[in-house]
Amino acid sequence: MIGAGFMGAAHSQGWRVAPRFFDLPLQPEMAVVVARTAATVETAAQKWGWAEAATDWREVIARDDIDLVDIVTPGDSHAEIAVAALKAGKHVLCEKPLANTVAEAEAMAEAAADAAERGVRAMVGFTYRRVPAVTHARNMIAAGRIGDVRQVRAAYRQDWLRDEDGPMTWRLDKSRAGSGALGDIGAHAIDLAEYVTGTTLTKVAGTIETIVRERPLLGETRGLSGTASNETGEVTVDDVATFTGRFAGNGGFEPIGTFEATRFATGRKNALTLEVSGSTGAIAFDLERLNELQFYDAQDSSLEQGFRTILVTEAEHPYLAPWWPAGHMLGYEHGFSHQVKDFVEAIAEGTEPSPSFAEGLHVQRVLAAVEDSSAEDARWTSVR
Amino acid sequence: MIGAGFMGAAHSQGWRVAPRFFDLPLQPEMAVVVARTAATVETAAQKWGWAEAATDWREVIARDDIDLVDIVTPGDSHAEIAVAALKAGKHVLCEKPLANTVAEAEAMAEAAADAAERGVRAMVGFTYRRVPAVTHARNMIAAGRIGDVRQVRAAYRQDWLRDEDGPMTWRLDKSRAGSGALGDIGAHAIDLAEYVTGTTLTKVAGTIETIVRERPLLGETRGLSGTASNETGEVTVDDVATFTGRFAGNGGFEPIGTFEATRFATGRKNALTLEVSGSTGAIAFDLERLNELQFYDAQDSSLEQGFRTILVTEAEHPYLAPWWPAGHMLGYEHGFSHQVKDFVEAIAEGTEPSPSFAEGLHVQRVLAAVEDSSAEDARWTSVR
Amino acid sequence: MIGAGFMGAAHSQGWRVAPRFFDLPLQPEMAVVVARTAATVETAAQKWGWAEAATDWREVIARDDIDLVDIVTPGDSHAEIAVAALKAGKHVLCEKPLANTVAEAEAMAEAAADAAERGVRAMVGFTYRRVPAVTHARNMIAAGRIGDVRQVRAAYRQDWLRDEDGPMTWRLDKSRAGSGALGDIGAHAIDLAEYVTGTTLTKVAGTIETIVRERPLLGETRGLSGTASNETGEVTVDDVATFTGRFAGNGGFEPIGTFEATRFATGRKNALTLEVSGSTGAIAFDLERLNELQFYDAQDSSLEQGFRTILVTEAEHPYLAPWWPAGHMLGYEHGFSHQVKDFVEAIAEGTEPSPSFAEGLHVQRVLAAVEDSSAEDARWTSVR
Amino acid sequence: MIGAGFMGAAHSQGWRVAPRFFDLPLQPEMAVVVARTAATVETAAQKWGWAEAATDWREVIARDDIDLVDIVTPGDSHAEIAVAALKAGKHVLCEKPLANTVAEAEAMAEAAADAAERGVRAMVGFTYRRVPAVTHARNMIAAGRIGDVRQVRAAYRQDWLRDEDGPMTWRLDKSRAGSGALGDIGAHAIDLAEYVTGTTLTKVAGTIETIVRERPLLGETRGLSGTASNETGEVTVDDVATFTGRFAGNGGFEPIGTFEATRFATGRKNALTLEVSGSTGAIAFDLERLNELQFYDAQDSSLEQGFRTILVTEAEHPYLAPWWPAGHMLGYEHGFSHQVKDFVEAIAEGTEPSPSFAEGLHVQRVLAAVEDSSAEDARWTSVR
Repeated sequence: MIGAGFMGAAHSQGWRVAPRFFDLPLQPEMAVVVARTAATVETAAQKWGWAEAATDWREVIARDDIDLVDIVTPGDSHAEIAVAALKAGKHVLCEKPLANTVAEAEAMAEAAADAAERGVRAMVGFTYRRVPAVTHARNMIAAGRIGDVRQVRAAYRQDWLRDEDGPMTWRLDKSRAGSGALGDIGAHAIDLAEYVTGTTLTKVAGTIETIVRERPLLGETRGLSGTASNETGEVTVDDVATFTGRFAGNGGFEPIGTFEATRFATGRKNALTLEVSGSTGAIAFDLERLNELQFYDAQDSSLEQGFRTILVTEAEHPYLAPWWPAGHMLGYEHGFSHQVKDFVEAIAEGTEPSPSFAEGLHVQRVLAAVEDSSAEDARWTSVR
Repeated sequence: MIGAGFMGAAHSQGWRVAPRFFDLPLQPEMAVVVARTAATVETAAQKWGWAEAATDWREVIARDDIDLVDIVTPGDSHAEIAVAALKAGKHVLCEKPLANTVAEAEAMAEAAADAAERGVRAMVGFTYRRVPAVTHARNMIAAGRIGDVRQVRAAYRQDWLRDEDGPMTWRLDKSRAGSGALGDIGAHAIDLAEYVTGTTLTKVAGTIETIVRERPLLGETRGLSGTASNETGEVTVDDVATFTGRFAGNGGFEPIGTFEATRFATGRKNALTLEVSGSTGAIAFDLERLNELQFYDAQDSSLEQGFRTILVTEAEHPYLAPWWPAGHMLGYEHGFSHQVKDFVEAIAEGTEPSPSFAEGLHVQRVLAAVEDSSAEDARWTSVR
Repeated sequence: MIGAGFMGAAHSQGWRVAPRFFDLPLQPEMAVVVARTAATVETAAQKWGWAEAATDWREVIARDDIDLVDIVTPGDSHAEIAVAALKAGKHVLCEKPLANTVAEAEAMAEAAADAAERGVRAMVGFTYRRVPAVTHARNMIAAGRIGDVRQVRAAYRQDWLRDEDGPMTWRLDKSRAGSGALGDIGAHAIDLAEYVTGTTLTKVAGTIETIVRERPLLGETRGLSGTASNETGEVTVDDVATFTGRFAGNGGFEPIGTFEATRFATGRKNALTLEVSGSTGAIAFDLERLNELQFYDAQDSSLEQGFRTILVTEAEHPYLAPWWPAGHMLGYEHGFSHQVKDFVEAIAEGTEPSPSFAEGLHVQRVLAAVEDSSAEDARWTSVR
Repeated sequence: MIGAGFMGAAHSQGWRVAPRFFDLPLQPEMAVVVARTAATVETAAQKWGWAEAATDWREVIARDDIDLVDIVTPGDSHAEIAVAALKAGKHVLCEKPLANTVAEAEAMAEAAADAAERGVRAMVGFTYRRVPAVTHARNMIAAGRIGDVRQVRAAYRQDWLRDEDGPMTWRLDKSRAGSGALGDIGAHAIDLAEYVTGTTLTKVAGTIETIVRERPLLGETRGLSGTASNETGEVTVDDVATFTGRFAGNGGFEPIGTFEATRFATGRKNALTLEVSGSTGAIAFDLERLNELQFYDAQDSSLEQGFRTILVTEAEHPYLAPWWPAGHMLGYEHGFSHQVKDFVEAIAEGTEPSPSFAEGLHVQRVLAAVEDSSAEDARWTSVR
């Protein structure tokens, strides 16, 4: 595993726990964790249970005893590491977003396609696909339980930038973070909407905006140059993005999607929400209640129609069988175990895992189209 | 009262009930109801308790014993009736939308301005302003309880067109209805967002779309020409509208609004929803739970923050004192009593009632700007 | 109508509004309102729209032009008025509780039975039966939609006595109020549970308790004797009642009921709640969201089971057709219009209205059995 | 760890994961898992990551390299194992219920008291205390955030016995399971109510009942004797228990508790719920939404009171700091990691862990008192 931040903790938990609940065809070994600083990576290795710690990812990739590389670094390094790892014949799991630019993502998707011919697999970490309620929603829609999809509403709302006196950080600096709310959490909303409905965005029209443009510099972000205590830095990424999209037609009509990504939705902590209106039903989901799926069946008796709250914790539900009895809740990190399970199975079976790098690239193209639209007066802009 | 449809029933209930609960400075008398067909209007008068029935609104407006005209006809006749009534010195309450076109609305606003100089009052019926939870939300925001407004999300979702085999009706014919979801229910979402936040939309970018474009002709809509039982008619109004807007700045930043109006939100019956994110708090409202207001106070202890469900049924809450004890719910029609109360009080006090015709005109301009934007590739379009 | 308190306002609204929405077989005329104090009753007559005001109910009952007597006085006068009215050949609608004692209620039920033989009708005002969602719940259970009833949980929770410094009032004085939470709101919970499930309590075991036993005397309650400002009065009724009951068997098993009535449920304003567990489904209701009914169908696909929120506002739902379109909410007072409708129809059709005085008597017997059980160490006590 | 059932999986996850997120003063090693059948225990060891497997718990307890014994066997073996382990100087974590009888529990509590003098620690596994929202509720009440506690409502509702054709199992046989819903899940409700309010039940009055008394014998439960396919077995434990309790007074008034434990609450899968009414506030919790805590503050402005939904996922909330960012949910099993953390810390610090065996014994006494009350006509029965 390359990287030792918050995502490193989550992925480590996935590798650690998945084999204890699922019967995997291959047994993962937590071999090496890599990060730039020796002290950091030593601590991470010990804390998270990796056998070794290392500081040079190139050396690790070159090792024969490494079969799989899990990339959890910031987005600007994904392309270089992933391409190198795939060329070295390692299976690659890469955290989202696939990359910071479309060009990088294209290179990665190409490398993944080449690798696939050699039986080497690549997957991108849109983990929320593997929240059981989300997978179940997709299955229900694929089975026709809501009929033709007509409208999709996806939003990812957080509020950690609400306080305008909150400090400047690297995540708010475009040169380092690549994007703001759009790329960080909007990407999840896009993937979720496409995954659950089984269709693809073809054009978008939208706006990105920065609500608080100056923030105090503190600690690291003040850097060497700062002296005055009231010095501020410029926020160069978006705080909020809203856009409308059209999906490739299912049965003629091209479903309409509305999207929002924001870090200013006061009171919403991690509210990735989705509501899909179909011709004979609807589903709704909220990550803040991730064990629940709302389902409305317009084919129920007219006296008895209503959104029902399905507790997606039954043994028959996706991924649920090896976990706990019905009604015993799963949490955020279970998606990482499910990701490990699916990736390991794909490797063992020699099938293409999903979301592929090509799918990751597509999301990057949607993000780019939103930025282009915003720059051109919110006009409709084709994806690609 | 001119008109005898669904809105006639609701307004009649307002006139009937308001004086029984509120101490009005003037006592309304339910004098005459007017509709084109003699039979219809006789039934309406008897059913709803109007003293007389009439079929010619011009005659009624000419009567000296009529002080106030309540217009609940379809939108295409609003301008003619309202202008005539105001000229005749009658106070006018006009159901929303103010008119079917901006030009008509302008004439009405002008007539209202002239009348106001003579002490004659005009009000437009955006009744949802007078749902107590909505009024309370406005009061809280005006009192600074959520700080500066940053994001506003307003939607009005219904599903009565979900079934593509549902018949063609006059409401789906642009020549008669003027507009579809946008004008019918989107107008409410616009007024609600502006009223609660106390600010004004200055530009919009959006899209209107018709999901089902052909519907079976049945009964009246088949007209004289139809013979084949599978004959269909063309839907010429929008089924769904989505748009983004910017509000005049409050403290520098121009709040971002996202709007949706749809008749295809499967499972949502009358879901007029609003969520406003402010710098120190947030409020959320859903007309399907109209006695409740969600409030998040970011100034609560960090251990105790959360959206709270305020039951807006306390005697201290707006309009509530004369009704029932706390926890006893109000319904849809109570807004019409509150509207009567406020309009009668404004007349007695000689003050300008709100929403004025000028406010109604503004909403028409927003609607027109959305249509213009949709016709021009979803580009940002100024209101006016 | 005899009485001019809060219930007078609610009943007046029922008489006023019902004929405007329902096609009644007989047209009610709001003839006379009666109360002890001339000033009070004059105001009430004018405010609520009664043609006359009177202070002597005996005189009114003796009038030939009065066909129906609506009793909304405190419980201690119900028996005398109702028996006299029935003997005088007037139909009687009597607010709950039927009486303050079982003996009075027995006399009333007897008088009602006698009157019925002469075509004179009597009904007791358990209005919550006529909240559409409640009626719908009963219909669904009667139609077998949840199978055999096994457990019933009914509670009525308010919090208006929460503050121990709140003043002593006549409602807390047993000699005047008869009972506390048990008789006032527990009676509703009992009737609701029996009505919705269609079965009858046969025995109970429970406890009544007074949480705050001394309260400050203020104004009226301080009476003539009081001098010191910190004088307190003794609360002689219950603040809270909890009990378990068994219902007459449906298919062998005697369903288990658990009940709570309290005025100390902090934050609950008018929460009359019910949850019924059946062999193939369940329903749940909360008066604080009175337009909604929760329904769980254990015969849905195992992947799709969940409590669904039925918005009981469709034209096909009980009482709904003449009101508003789907999704437009009803309030507390609509039940009073429904009560008027059903009572007037029963009179016109010559059928026995429900809840009858016999049913009201039964509820009194349940209340008495709870008090007896509480006095005897919470032992199981037969209802009669 | 002794035992290899469902609880074995949960405890293993606790031992495995806790050290990866919390900085423990001692490092647990997952040494040996013990179960009767060799095949079973081998599988469990491999699956769950225990270094060794064994079939004789006595041998394991005798080993010097074992410091701590975690007992997850059925309740009838707890006493023997725990007492032996404590005598052997091993720290003991024992799954709830502490034992199947009060006598056994007394022996265990005595052994624990003796052991404590030698620095050997014992804890019973009421894991739900360590759901962060539950711990937070206790902290808030202890800090006076709801004032004096007056009413407590605790219920544990499941529905896995709903289907009367569901088979007989050992859990429904009193000779093996000890108790039914009361002991299995009612025990959790009791501990939760006492833990959160910080007070103790002193007497109870209640009823236990078996709804379905005969169930088909299948597989193991048909045993050797069975031949006919329609053979049934007798259910000898309770399906449902309801009782009222009084808690030791806090400030004079003895709070009233109402309790329900049931396996027949159709649609409720794992609904351990609690609502506590205090003199200045209230809290409510539902295990089916375990990351949320409802809090009502009666000291908020009267215009703004309402139950607020606290998302207990902030770093400042109990146990949360080492997990994920705010809004990222925890699941059922996290409580087991928190239990490991607290037990290991108590051992390292030489303090008494809680819930102690004495607390576990107290819960057993409450359960016994409920059974006694039920046998004596539901009369009030002292705990002990």
